[in-house]
Amino acid sequence: MENLSQDNQDLIKKFGAEPIDKLSNTPDFYSFKTGVVVSHRDFDKFFKAIKNKEKCAILSGVNASGTLHLGHKPVFDTNLFFQKKYNIPVFIPISDDESYVAGKVKDQKQALENSLKLAKQLLAYGFDPKKTYFIIDQIYTNIYNLAIKLSKKVNYSEIKATYGYKPEENIGLHFYPAVQSAHILFPQEKFNIPNVLVPIGPDEDAHIRISRDIASRAGYKKPAILHSKFLPGIDGKKMSKSKNNAIFLSDDEKTIRKKISKAFSGGQPSIEEHKKLGGNPKIDVSCIYLKNLFLPKEKYQEIESKYKKGELLSKDVKQMFADKAVEFIKQFQNNLKKISEKTVNNCILKND
Amino acid sequence: MENLSQDNQDLIKKFGAEPIDKLSNTPDFYSFKTGVVVSHRDFDKFFKAIKNKEKCAILSGVNASGTLHLGHKPVFDTNLFFQKKYNIPVFIPISDDESYVAGKVKDQKQALENSLKLAKQLLAYGFDPKKTYFIIDQIYTNIYNLAIKLSKKVNYSEIKATYGYKPEENIGLHFYPAVQSAHILFPQEKFNIPNVLVPIGPDEDAHIRISRDIASRAGYKKPAILHSKFLPGIDGKKMSKSKNNAIFLSDDEKTIRKKISKAFSGGQPSIEEHKKLGGNPKIDVSCIYLKNLFLPKEKYQEIESKYKKGELLSKDVKQMFADKAVEFIKQFQNNLKKISEKTVNNCILKND
Repeated sequence: MENLSQDNQDLIKKFGAEPIDKLSNTPDFYSFKTGVVVSHRDFDKFFKAIKNKEKCAILSGVNASGTLHLGHKPVFDTNLFFQKKYNIPVFIPISDDESYVAGKVKDQKQALENSLKLAKQLLAYGFDPKKTYFIIDQIYTNIYNLAIKLSKKVNYSEIKATYGYKPEENIGLHFYPAVQSAHILFPQEKFNIPNVLVPIGPDEDAHIRISRDIASRAGYKKPAILHSKFLPGIDGKKMSKSKNNAIFLSDDEKTIRKKISKAFSGGQPSIEEHKKLGGNPKIDVSCIYLKNLFLPKEKYQEIESKYKKGELLSKDVKQMFADKAVEFIKQFQNNLKKISEKTVNNCILKND
Repeated sequence: MENLSQDNQDLIKKFGAEPIDKLSNTPDFYSFKTGVVVSHRDFDKFFKAIKNKEKCAILSGVNASGTLHLGHKPVFDTNLFFQKKYNIPVFIPISDDESYVAGKVKDQKQALENSLKLAKQLLAYGFDPKKTYFIIDQIYTNIYNLAIKLSKKVNYSEIKATYGYKPEENIGLHFYPAVQSAHILFPQEKFNIPNVLVPIGPDEDAHIRISRDIASRAGYKKPAILHSKFLPGIDGKKMSKSKNNAIFLSDDEKTIRKKISKAFSGGQPSIEEHKKLGGNPKIDVSCIYLKNLFLPKEKYQEIESKYKKGELLSKDVKQMFADKAVEFIKQFQNNLKKISEKTVNNCILKND
């Protein structure tokens, strides 16, 4: 479990998640090969259901306060892989209500605007408008009927223990776990799809664990979970809004290349030393991104080997990373121009 | 403050409600004369707004677990008086979500069925379909956008202190105060009606007080409140579901007369004694109902005087009460037959 955060390690050691590499049968997709998908709950059952052509869905939420960045890539790519390869629908709740009650946006209007923008970006990312459903809570307010149903199955003490909310925090925040559970159980409730996979970061497992408990209590099937690991920010530290250390899908080429030129490096202080001692790819942000997101295993291993031997300099791997990032983001930005408001609107669930 | 419950007395003595009889200007309607409306908050301002022909509304909720009974009469009659005399709209939230999370109904389906039934009954009661709006939360789920907005303005500690909910109670119950506040502020938010009157029983004041605080925090005008007193159950005790001591608007004549024949009486143990000593109208349920609901002041005083002198027997006042109740309820039941589903449906707010 090299290179894993404490969160990811704890999930396996303390909270009963299963390591993905113990599975005999995993999808033929990069996120399962590079180690970016670390562990799971019931993924084996979900994958079997897919193979058996049972009704399946992916459910993968985003927050209305967020902007898409490269850190989202492995999860979205994994979702896309399932959508394309197995023709299964993807449900994307955009929790504009949580963004508001958690104080991540100024008001509900801003949360809604962000949500619409995100929906458009996600279609530009490649999600198929015919098989993608956005649940924007302010628009699809019927989600609350399911949230109310589920809210009866979980009490304040459990929420406090799981989320750590304090009594001085508002009651919207305290209620949100019911809405999140409603999102997760929505494909079952509304479309009678029993097999649902929820790909998440390691920090969200506690929230989804409680949703799985609620699912059982309310007579639904527990959704499966995939835990990915977090990619580091460009400075090698944990990605965070306050540190502004992500590469955003809205960045222009100049910004991307400038950010990557300053990326945390595993290289030596001087070129001479680097050629003699070689670089450390394990801490080199460019190597980490190339490995996890952009290069096939063999190709990466070749580069890693050269970097370790000092045959490739830090600026070389940065250049490779920057070229890949620019190519990917330019493609995204080109796609974005082609997505019409109508296409976006058609993918947003409406009250019936 | 004779004959007032501790709740009603406390509102005035401890919680700053104003006695209604201190107002120089009150509506010319029985509930303000018989003492059934006891106290208020800002009713003087509301009544002035009506007189000034400003935009006004009544907001008066019912619970989806309930069945209409004679105890509802004074509040509904007061609402009807304002609707008819001053042509103002009446909003009636039917809190089907609260009924469910509080465990008062089996499931959401039952809560919805009850809500539709209640809406029909309220139109039969006399509310004008052109000026009456039912907010059934399962149908008008958009109410949650306002509830979410308001939920940010109130924290768990306040809810705990006001409602006394325990940590082992579900999070739907903990969130409901935000929905209740949304109901109360809905005419302001949606129809830009700044003057809203909320008639309630004395037990609900704490809940509405917190909604008034939330209103201020969220930039709305505080709604005015009227506090009525509870009428006793037929046994002279507090009306309660478990005691089945109400006269329901669904009761048939035989049932009504049977219930009233057993009503708690202020008469003497024997006719001889009664003729000698007279009855006590203050504790006599039939007298209380005749006074508060059915007779003009002068007419009642005449009867009271005769009852006190022993010239009227307990069975006489019971007979009068039963005749009035039967007449009133028969009229309601006749009306009920004439209310179509379409009329009901037109009065139910829909998501837009």
